[in-house]
Amino acid sequence: MTTHIEGGICAPQGFTANAVIAEVKPGRKRNDVALVYAEKPCNAAAVFTTNLVKAEPVKLSRKHIADGKAQAIILNSGNANACTGETGSQNALRMAKAVSANLPVKTEDVIVCSTGVIGQQLLVERIEAKAAELVKGLSKTGNELARQAIMTTDTVYKEVAVETQIGGKKVRIGTMAKGSGMIHINMGTMLGVITTDCAISSAMLKAALEESIKGSYNCVTVDGDTSTNDTLCILASGMAGNAEITTQNEDYAAFLSALNEVNVEMAKKIAGDGEGAERLIECVVTGAASVESARKLARSVISSNLVKAAFFGKDANWGRILCAMGYSGEKFDTGKVCVSFVSKAGKVDVCKNGMDVDFDEDFATKVLSEDAVTIAIQCADGSCTGTAWGCDLTYEYVKINGDYRT
Amino acid sequence: MTTHIEGGICAPQGFTANAVIAEVKPGRKRNDVALVYAEKPCNAAAVFTTNLVKAEPVKLSRKHIADGKAQAIILNSGNANACTGETGSQNALRMAKAVSANLPVKTEDVIVCSTGVIGQQLLVERIEAKAAELVKGLSKTGNELARQAIMTTDTVYKEVAVETQIGGKKVRIGTMAKGSGMIHINMGTMLGVITTDCAISSAMLKAALEESIKGSYNCVTVDGDTSTNDTLCILASGMAGNAEITTQNEDYAAFLSALNEVNVEMAKKIAGDGEGAERLIECVVTGAASVESARKLARSVISSNLVKAAFFGKDANWGRILCAMGYSGEKFDTGKVCVSFVSKAGKVDVCKNGMDVDFDEDFATKVLSEDAVTIAIQCADGSCTGTAWGCDLTYEYVKINGDYRT
Repeated sequence: MTTHIEGGICAPQGFTANAVIAEVKPGRKRNDVALVYAEKPCNAAAVFTTNLVKAEPVKLSRKHIADGKAQAIILNSGNANACTGETGSQNALRMAKAVSANLPVKTEDVIVCSTGVIGQQLLVERIEAKAAELVKGLSKTGNELARQAIMTTDTVYKEVAVETQIGGKKVRIGTMAKGSGMIHINMGTMLGVITTDCAISSAMLKAALEESIKGSYNCVTVDGDTSTNDTLCILASGMAGNAEITTQNEDYAAFLSALNEVNVEMAKKIAGDGEGAERLIECVVTGAASVESARKLARSVISSNLVKAAFFGKDANWGRILCAMGYSGEKFDTGKVCVSFVSKAGKVDVCKNGMDVDFDEDFATKVLSEDAVTIAIQCADGSCTGTAWGCDLTYEYVKINGDYRT
Repeated sequence: MTTHIEGGICAPQGFTANAVIAEVKPGRKRNDVALVYAEKPCNAAAVFTTNLVKAEPVKLSRKHIADGKAQAIILNSGNANACTGETGSQNALRMAKAVSANLPVKTEDVIVCSTGVIGQQLLVERIEAKAAELVKGLSKTGNELARQAIMTTDTVYKEVAVETQIGGKKVRIGTMAKGSGMIHINMGTMLGVITTDCAISSAMLKAALEESIKGSYNCVTVDGDTSTNDTLCILASGMAGNAEITTQNEDYAAFLSALNEVNVEMAKKIAGDGEGAERLIECVVTGAASVESARKLARSVISSNLVKAAFFGKDANWGRILCAMGYSGEKFDTGKVCVSFVSKAGKVDVCKNGMDVDFDEDFATKVLSEDAVTIAIQCADGSCTGTAWGCDLTYEYVKINGDYRT
């Protein structure tokens, strides 16, 4: 059992954070550089974008985390430092060095994350100039600044922290992430930091992280675009005092369960705050042949522009849902699919055995008007379930992305 | 060499067409049922949607064309007859029978195509009631009615006809298609009819059709949704009097070349008239390792919501283009990619060797403001070229698809 607590990334023992205004994007005077710091080197793991075009901080951070150790994470918004070549590579390293120059941490133990416009050189000297101030302000309430500093077109910050029991000890997990646009299902799909005071080996941390994203971050889409900068990094301070988890034992299962809970909650937050989104759409597929098949079907539905636009219009257009299932690449009995829409306003069945059922259009519109709507899809191919999260496609999405760079 | 001619699907010898108002979609009083008729049985071939959820007319037409013969095609807009079960299956057959009851043609030689809303039963008796009138009005200028009758949210009809020389004879190819929404790159991606008076075997016709769509219809996307109804059908009357093409000889090459020309022109028409589109976007990738790789890269760029939204905003956001190439699954040297935008207003280089170049933003906006813009991408991985076509993502797309069904 987990309990939600305050403190985000600073909730687990051993972590502090801070953020400063560096004006990485000229003219944007808001906190835009964040630091998460562990008082001692941590076991660490990370997953990165699968995009062939990788941002420079991604390339650097992959090297720095290869040994399963990290102690600090510096993040900036306002510039992605992607498609920036050798200068960009140097600039990512300079961000890491700006941390190690001001703290007792090795440059190789600093993870670097950037988010923002692709293809413009990072004004790294602005970050360097603020590094001392950034370090000086590290505190246990710094999560409140850091969670804001990493936002781009996000309208709300995304943060979760929970407490659970592992091996008789209180263990905490905290996380923050930046979502919004260029979000798709192939891995990480944003910038995210997870901290924990659980004692767990780097190998088990990596296993848990990779397992956990399958049903959380890998099941979120906003616009189908996999970014160049996706990074999800987890640091474990070990200060909870539990017996270190080094195999997939009962304690590992408890840790994974809490991590899943945190990541699913964050995935929903990201989907619900997708660029321009008016509502969170959850798609739950039951009765599938396998979990992977259920997730793939759910992701295909959630990724469809036509489905997303129909939800914007509160239109119970279930035909588009079956269409999107049909091109998912998964096999299913098309003549046995049932579809319902569920929200706080109630439940409306719209498709039975692959065909139309009579339903009250006015009531359906009411169900679809809520802030969060679930598409419940029942297949007759097995007993497995999978869930994916997305949002509607709105005028605002088009507006935001028609004029983002300038 | 081909010459463009008038007449569309009626241009080749042996074909007539017509359309009538059947009000398949209640209240929509416009031509909505079309018939294309060949005065004698034709060699024929077709490609159909790869969607697992196939509309009933698709299932029927696959059976009817299996023997490589067809003589008539009946098409309706206003209802897709998809997800309609056994009743839908009967209704598709009734459409074919409505033709064979009024013309000297076997039911098995009638191809049936439907487009419109998914999941509502087709009011087939309305089509049956108008079948005699539909047949009676068949004429050599009927293409003008038929090309309109198949439109849904299309704003302009799509029609092309060309004349060429094959084996010393004048050969004609005519075509019409319905495009607009639920258009993606996995095959046919719309309803299309191609007629020709070329003498060519069913096997060669099938080979030519399948080869031709690779660089035309398979390289078009509007919204990434592969429909349940995609059908592209070709009928060859053989009346041009050329020696029948039965192998992939010189005559076959000439026929394929003309067919490619026609299909590429149609693909561009469909992309340019994508739902809500303000401009046609062409993406040409050169210097790729293979033609397939070039096409896959081009298709990934053209499919990106973020790229499409940037074009709507006339924003020279080339970073999103590299990002979309990066998640295409294709390998390329990311540090050697060059990108330019080209239109009637001129050419602007925006990325060189994977990085930013200085360019005049005002001039770039001018280039991007034209009705048709080409994204020219130069890779350094080989000598192959591929092209794909799409359109921008606009408020109007969201509007159309937020309220299509009701």
